[in-house]
Order: sequence, then structure tokens, then C-alpha cells
Amino acid sequence: MIRHVVMFTWNPEATEEQKAAVPAGLAELPGRIPQIRRYEYGPGVNPGNKDFVLVADFDDHEDFVTYRDHPDHREFIDRCVAPIAADLARVQYRLHG
Amino acid sequence: MIRHVVMFTWNPEATEEQKAAVPAGLAELPGRIPQIRRYEYGPGVNPGNKDFVLVADFDDHEDFVTYRDHPDHREFIDRCVAPIAADLARVQYRLHG
Repeated sequence: MIRHVVMFTWNPEATEEQKAAVPAGLAELPGRIPQIRRYEYGPGVNPGNKDFVLVADFDDHEDFVTYRDHPDHREFIDRCVAPIAADLARVQYRLHG
Repeated sequence: MIRHVVMFTWNPEATEEQKAAVPAGLAELPGRIPQIRRYEYGPGVNPGNKDFVLVADFDDHEDFVTYRDHPDHREFIDRCVAPIAADLARVQYRLHG
């Protein structure tokens, strides 16, 4: 299994509506991208740390790449994430077990 | 449940021995800090992204704080992580379900 983790800081100008569109948009992706095995996400709870995180699991690295480059995923990023993301940190790693 | 996610970029000068000491040190913490419910970590597999990630689950935010401030955890950070970490990104969020 490959786990993909990405976390964001939102722009100070991001509206509550824009922030709410992120989990709403993410909720649609597992139904459209069958390579997603597990998909967990949510807003950060501690000020000073990152604002939002997504943890996504795939059977292998090829499935992760299929997800990464999937048109519905890219469209979601362009529409919901890119306009409000001040920075992003991400990593993919092999899940034990 | 509260999930704590932290990811690191290592200094270019970090040795393989120093990098290997991180998972070795993490492996000891669940036996010493009973608040840890789940503990998964590993090196990143894609160049250009972060080098290492830890995903840790706790029953509640208080347990996370107990872990964060636990002397064995702090000692591990001071000894193994701080000397080789170029940067760090972290977030805590409420796990669904």
C-alpha cells in the first residue's frame, strides 16, 4: 500500500465558503476514482499548524499516479484548492502491514 | 479520535545513519507512551516531496498533548530529529468514524 499525505495552509483571504468547498469536493472523488482505497481528511484543530490535511491510501504507486493525474482530481485542485492554498506539504510512503 | 500528522525534510548533510535512527527511535515510543493508539511512519518515496512522515492516532486531544509533551518523546526529538530536520509541517485533525 502507498499512502499519500498532503497538508495545506489557506490564504488569510480564503472565505468560509471556499474552505467548505474543499471537503465537499473531496467527498465526490472516491466515487469517481476507483483507485482510492481509503480517503480521510479534515481541518486542522490547532492554530499555528496546518489548516487542512488529506490522507489517501492506494494499492500501489501506479494507482497513486492514476489518482494524481485523474482529470476529476486536477479539476478539483484547480477549482477549489489552488485559489486558496498559501502553501502545501506532501509525501508518499509505503504503509507497513 | 485525533490524528496527528507530521512530515519532515532532512538536511542535505544528514547521514544515512542519522536518518535510520528516526524510525528506530519511533519504534520504541508506543511501548513507553500508552496514549498512542496507532503509529505509522516511513520515508517518502518521491523525490521533491517530503522525506519522512509520521501519522499518529489518539483517543482525544488531551492524549495527543500528553504524547507531545512526554519526556521520552521530547528526548527523541532533541536527539534524533532536531539535528537533521530542515523543515517540518504538521497538523492535528478529528478522524471521521
